Amino acid sequence: MLIVQKYGGSSVATPELIRQVAKRAIETKNQGHQVVVVLSAMKGETDRLLGLAAEMADSPEPREVDQLISTGEQTTIALFALACQRMGERAKSFTGGQAGIRTDEMHQRARITGIDPSRIKTELAKGRVVAVAGFQGMDKEQNVTTLGRGGSDTTAVALAVALGADTCEIYTDVDGIYTTDPNICENARKMEKISFEEMIELASLGAKVMEIRSVEFAMNYNMKIHVRHAHLPGTGTIICEEDIDMEKKPVTGVAYSKNEARVTLLKVADQPGIAAKILGIVSASGIVVDMIIQNQSAEADPLTGRSHTDFSFTVPLSDYAKTMELMEGTAQEIGMERIIGTDNIAKISLVGVGMRNHAGVATQMFQTLAKEGINISLISTSEIKISCVIEKKYTELAVRALHDAFGLGDAPDVQE
Amino acid sequence: MLIVQKYGGSSVATPELIRQVAKRAIETKNQGHQVVVVLSAMKGETDRLLGLAAEMADSPEPREVDQLISTGEQTTIALFALACQRMGERAKSFTGGQAGIRTDEMHQRARITGIDPSRIKTELAKGRVVAVAGFQGMDKEQNVTTLGRGGSDTTAVALAVALGADTCEIYTDVDGIYTTDPNICENARKMEKISFEEMIELASLGAKVMEIRSVEFAMNYNMKIHVRHAHLPGTGTIICEEDIDMEKKPVTGVAYSKNEARVTLLKVADQPGIAAKILGIVSASGIVVDMIIQNQSAEADPLTGRSHTDFSFTVPLSDYAKTMELMEGTAQEIGMERIIGTDNIAKISLVGVGMRNHAGVATQMFQTLAKEGINISLISTSEIKISCVIEKKYTELAVRALHDAFGLGDAPDVQE
Repeated sequence: MLIVQKYGGSSVATPELIRQVAKRAIETKNQGHQVVVVLSAMKGETDRLLGLAAEMADSPEPREVDQLISTGEQTTIALFALACQRMGERAKSFTGGQAGIRTDEMHQRARITGIDPSRIKTELAKGRVVAVAGFQGMDKEQNVTTLGRGGSDTTAVALAVALGADTCEIYTDVDGIYTTDPNICENARKMEKISFEEMIELASLGAKVMEIRSVEFAMNYNMKIHVRHAHLPGTGTIICEEDIDMEKKPVTGVAYSKNEARVTLLKVADQPGIAAKILGIVSASGIVVDMIIQNQSAEADPLTGRSHTDFSFTVPLSDYAKTMELMEGTAQEIGMERIIGTDNIAKISLVGVGMRNHAGVATQMFQTLAKEGINISLISTSEIKISCVIEKKYTELAVRALHDAFGLGDAPDVQE
Repeated sequence: MLIVQKYGGSSVATPELIRQVAKRAIETKNQGHQVVVVLSAMKGETDRLLGLAAEMADSPEPREVDQLISTGEQTTIALFALACQRMGERAKSFTGGQAGIRTDEMHQRARITGIDPSRIKTELAKGRVVAVAGFQGMDKEQNVTTLGRGGSDTTAVALAVALGADTCEIYTDVDGIYTTDPNICENARKMEKISFEEMIELASLGAKVMEIRSVEFAMNYNMKIHVRHAHLPGTGTIICEEDIDMEKKPVTGVAYSKNEARVTLLKVADQPGIAAKILGIVSASGIVVDMIIQNQSAEADPLTGRSHTDFSFTVPLSDYAKTMELMEGTAQEIGMERIIGTDNIAKISLVGVGMRNHAGVATQMFQTLAKEGINISLISTSEIKISCVIEKKYTELAVRALHDAFGLGDAPDVQE
């Protein structure tokens, strides 16, 4: 088999941990596999370098920041190759550019435009372990680019696809994907398998195990991902296409996020293009809107002949103040009565591909929250997800109540 | 003018010093020049990375060491570019590979095989300051290579040649080239000008200001070098072709080295090829021999009909033990009576292009040493240099006596 293994920053935080990672890669090779290892920068290193950049300039130029922070992964891959050498194994390290990873020129958030895996293939054919710097690539002018935070996952999946790998193993500091946050819910259960779609929803909802873009990439190319703990044994969680072996429950997991704020525009003129106008203002400032809710407008005002609607959306907590400012500055232009907002919210979400065929999940969710006396401020649904915005202080209570109500904790593991 | 400036590790040891270097480069540009800046790794960084490499493997593979330590300069150039940005100047940084510096594949001591300066030229034409990582290049397989210690000087000179620069400024932590070590000789005098040939001799004799290979390179292409202090004002020293403005004195400088040891083979059979055989054994072990002295052999032994000679050479102190071992192991094969050696030596050298036309420099040197009661153990001469090996404890005394005897301290500076 050809296996791509990715190890995150906390798995390679020290020379000793790098040695352990090298040992694991070599063991995999000795089982008869070809192994490509994608490595992140040693934990803390990227932040150290970003700190230096911030010390030098206020809004450091992205091209130079990439030139700077890409040294983090380059250091790790070289140390990994040397660790392999000590164990009698010849490994070869490649920066993103050397590995043939081509990207567009959007520094700090570049997208992979193509991979030429020929050099990696040549080294694999020679029986070598290949180490590739995650998170980085090269644009067509040979500038170093980075893929943005979590980009090492993307590197691993994209390489796995380009190499036609059999599996892509993501080694991290948790032992798999859980039905909900084990820190909140004692009986949270590790899942053996989860579908790409569910993982994407969970990732977007704040499950920090994998970066969402890399899961989307894996789904598009049907590349099986195996999430495992870097230094502990265990079967981990497999992320793959929905299959008949998967759990038949309508709900697979409960996710939550405390990192959003809500903005509501009251009595907005209900006319074509108004939503686009509002969101256009927000996104032009680089703010990413999450939930967007607009109700059916009330009857037209009998006096003016005009109709109005209320328009709500959520933004990252860090962009809340800026968003409120923006909206207040354009209130007149948009035409509304009042703006209200709060950062005292949490978003609770149920995820599951089984939801598609099960009526009543939403109803049961609302009932469960109501029974705990939790008021719902916004609701948003997708085919395999229902999210509710509630008051922040109820977060843990809501997660536990829903986890219990949908029987997530006590279900038996599906056999591998 | 197009000016290449090179700053060493101690000149960019901290973010604050990098800012000062950026300021100097920008000032140069604002005087109407095009500026390319070659930077070393921040002081201590290369050693830190080499320490990490040594921690990972006993004899770390050179390719991976280069992959690792090249991050040092890459970090500096990015920080430099960001420092320029803060001062309102758009700078662009290039690794050796990005700058078009091609080398052979001899990792850790690669030689530059060619430079494609088109990208640098494009950026200069846009009015940008260009920062290039010193000490590194890329082989034809896109592996990162390094040029060996001091290689940033070579990068600077080679780039200056390739770009057709008007001058190559080497900024360092001394303010120029001195007639001798000011730490030993109070009235040592900074020289305004010195010829390439003299600088090569001084560099090879232990003057640590510039790496010898880079001076040779500059001489071959007649690229004027200007050595200056990175953070102090001053006129520095210009290294250029010998010209009529240069000092008319026969001796320009006194150099010394305490980093050698002497090995003498007594009564070696005096036959063709014996010197090549001895040195072949030494150099096959990667040991660099400095002085080589063989006396005219004595009359042939009347009994055996054979003639013998004594053969001496000096090696770096660090290779002394290994050399003695090698020689003892091959004594029989070579055919000699005895091997003697000592590391209790120093080499004192007089350098000066004027020596060519002045008889009596050697005589005056030997007389001066004799007057101080210093015995000479080896003598070696070249066209512009005389070196004597003496007992180590007399080093400082010999340097001062010779510096005075040849009137180096009290001579007036030649006007620029």
